[in-house]
Amino acid sequence: MSTISLPPLPPGRVVEDADVALGYATDRSLGSTAPEEYVVVRARDRADVVAVLEHAQAHRVAVVPQGARSSLCGGSTAIAGGIVLNVEALQRLEIDRAERYATVGPGVVTADLKQAAASEGLAYPPDPASSPFCTIGGNVATNAGGLCCVKYGVTAGYVLGLEVVLAGGEVIRTGRRTAKGVAGLDLTGLFVGSEGQLGVVTEAVLRLVPASDPPLTVLATFASLADATRGLLALRNDRHGPNLLEVLDGPSLRAIQAMQDFGSPEDAAAALLVQSDRPGSTDADVRRYAELLSDAGADAVAVADDEQEAEALMAGRRALAPALERKGSHFIEDVCVPVSRLGDLIAAAHEVGERTGVDITLSGHGGDGNLHPCLFFDDSPGSRERAEGAFADLVDVALRMGGTITGEHGVGTLKRRWLPRELGEAELARQRAVKAVFDPLGIMNPGRPL
Amino acid sequence: MSTISLPPLPPGRVVEDADVALGYATDRSLGSTAPEEYVVVRARDRADVVAVLEHAQAHRVAVVPQGARSSLCGGSTAIAGGIVLNVEALQRLEIDRAERYATVGPGVVTADLKQAAASEGLAYPPDPASSPFCTIGGNVATNAGGLCCVKYGVTAGYVLGLEVVLAGGEVIRTGRRTAKGVAGLDLTGLFVGSEGQLGVVTEAVLRLVPASDPPLTVLATFASLADATRGLLALRNDRHGPNLLEVLDGPSLRAIQAMQDFGSPEDAAAALLVQSDRPGSTDADVRRYAELLSDAGADAVAVADDEQEAEALMAGRRALAPALERKGSHFIEDVCVPVSRLGDLIAAAHEVGERTGVDITLSGHGGDGNLHPCLFFDDSPGSRERAEGAFADLVDVALRMGGTITGEHGVGTLKRRWLPRELGEAELARQRAVKAVFDPLGIMNPGRPL
Repeated sequence: MSTISLPPLPPGRVVEDADVALGYATDRSLGSTAPEEYVVVRARDRADVVAVLEHAQAHRVAVVPQGARSSLCGGSTAIAGGIVLNVEALQRLEIDRAERYATVGPGVVTADLKQAAASEGLAYPPDPASSPFCTIGGNVATNAGGLCCVKYGVTAGYVLGLEVVLAGGEVIRTGRRTAKGVAGLDLTGLFVGSEGQLGVVTEAVLRLVPASDPPLTVLATFASLADATRGLLALRNDRHGPNLLEVLDGPSLRAIQAMQDFGSPEDAAAALLVQSDRPGSTDADVRRYAELLSDAGADAVAVADDEQEAEALMAGRRALAPALERKGSHFIEDVCVPVSRLGDLIAAAHEVGERTGVDITLSGHGGDGNLHPCLFFDDSPGSRERAEGAFADLVDVALRMGGTITGEHGVGTLKRRWLPRELGEAELARQRAVKAVFDPLGIMNPGRPL
Repeated sequence: MSTISLPPLPPGRVVEDADVALGYATDRSLGSTAPEEYVVVRARDRADVVAVLEHAQAHRVAVVPQGARSSLCGGSTAIAGGIVLNVEALQRLEIDRAERYATVGPGVVTADLKQAAASEGLAYPPDPASSPFCTIGGNVATNAGGLCCVKYGVTAGYVLGLEVVLAGGEVIRTGRRTAKGVAGLDLTGLFVGSEGQLGVVTEAVLRLVPASDPPLTVLATFASLADATRGLLALRNDRHGPNLLEVLDGPSLRAIQAMQDFGSPEDAAAALLVQSDRPGSTDADVRRYAELLSDAGADAVAVADDEQEAEALMAGRRALAPALERKGSHFIEDVCVPVSRLGDLIAAAHEVGERTGVDITLSGHGGDGNLHPCLFFDDSPGSRERAEGAFADLVDVALRMGGTITGEHGVGTLKRRWLPRELGEAELARQRAVKAVFDPLGIMNPGRPL
């Protein structure tokens, strides 16, 4: 039995079954394990959140705000002696068609919001790869990105206002519901991406946009990384740029091809997968993209003329996750560099792989310079440590290029050690002081990363 | 002679001539006057800013960061006993073409940055009406908007990173130069719109976008505000929405028409001025906009077929400022409401005008629900106070509609009294505490608005 202090809560909130609780203790990050002692509360409404945070501050108990546990960096795992406060049951979802915003509970699955918006002829663009199961609370907490950011930007660009419960139980509302507004400091933006360290979001007002067209797709393969980078820059500078501009390195392509024949050349250095969703112009766009890619030196360019062909081209990209799975144990990372350095980053990662004997593939959101290195290991002694060491080398490379340790996953516990290097001690100290304004006793998701 | 304490500074920094200093003591806000005692420092580089802020904190002297003094809400006027720290001379302007960002000193005039970007085939979209003379430092401080926000959003969407000197002289760098990045709290966004209350921006890294086409224009007049609002909503929901969607109420149109014949019907309730700058599609867009406006009930719709005609239609809009000037003494205000309430706001403002006997015109960024009421007064006793009272009534109307006291100008000193009502005391207290993290002694632009 847990001895962690909890406030009185209505029935059904506290998870009593140890096996069920265990399911809430870990997330999708590498090596995520449950601590000895923790307790899980499944909030059903704001009052539950207020009660927990009021009590937790009074008793100095750590609180981990949690949604779908899709974090890859240890942002939502249980903390020893702490309360896991799951908010998946906060499911409000209302759309204001005329004003084009949605009022959304943190437990709403991102794909469900996207579907609800689509049924009104609108769109909620942010699309982390986990959107079929991740939730809006986590998207706000991590400022989630995804495949469409190259055209539509990240979550922060869509959050108009928030309702947040602070440590101690105070409820504040930030932001606005109007299209513009500059009254006071932008606390909304401060909460977005704060990784659950400033409070618990209990409601978000999210901007919607008019729906786009079903996308058409171009796939181009390149024999050289320099040509692929050139193609990527040409597309990024097009005045009707793509809504998706993904890159796959040679090892990623070969992993996919090993599972199923998608026709990738054996010696391809990289592939670019490009889409247009521009209303009424997808066809013209993909033809222009194909020309730009050929001009940049692509070996082979395939253009999808219709939605079905577009799907076929995307199938290869979608096969990546199972193909990596098939290759063996691995962890998926997240760095971002200036886009013109993308080819250099891939080449440097392959060098790190060769030097350390670690198998590394890179793929991701090329149009933003945001790649997801995938590092493989096995059960042999020291294998996982070698993979982690290789990633540390890669972080070093990315930072030297003027990049960041995380483009979209967040810092969490796993990347905390590099944060001082990226931010510098002066900014880090200010960030800690800002956190203390909202959480003076440091009970909110402590150490993730501040 | 001023007795205000200053650090040792290189020659030419401190303004010795009282008449010259007076020019730096006021801004464009109503009733802006110079205090008895103040001192003006014209910084030439970051070292000057550091020296002043280090000294000012040590001696608890108020500092007003200042650019072009284009504030309409008293954000940059001298404070009694304080230092005006003008940064117009910080003029760095470098463009990274491949990565599509500019590194910009706070003294760079917005129009100059726009021009520099254009010469590289790029664009810096934010376009406050004051862009020919306002500066980037002020744009960042107020999160400046403008005419194009309906398509391109506000300044915050373009600020990737900042260099800021804090009270006490510490220099911090926030943000990034990559397209994405989520390491740590978003202090960049916190500084944007903070009205000089957290520190002095000495450099901004600003995102640029590919250039658009020269715009084509549609002008539609309406006999009823309800029809004009319907037209506005139809355009806003178009999947290729306009880059400019301005509204002019009947009194604004009549003021323009009184100066020069632009062919506005005498009894028009409102006009919408709409543009497309979409590369390759401006012609198709304006024709579609014209149909949407006719369908919404427009009396007359004029479409500009070429750039010259587009200019002719815009000339009427540009004549607004001189036409209002000609009408008499006035102040220009700034509120924002949900877009579907725009017609209601205009009608309510006219009712306020009739009830109080104050002449009121409204115009502005209709597509964002962001209007600039213009309130007239004369030299007769109580006239100006009546105009100010009428505006207070209008603020009340806007807040009741779910609007904000400022869409883009900022709060400054003039709208400070309404801030608690809009934010609530809980959020306001948090904002003050956040300010204290960066400015513990409260020397940075005190009272504007925190």
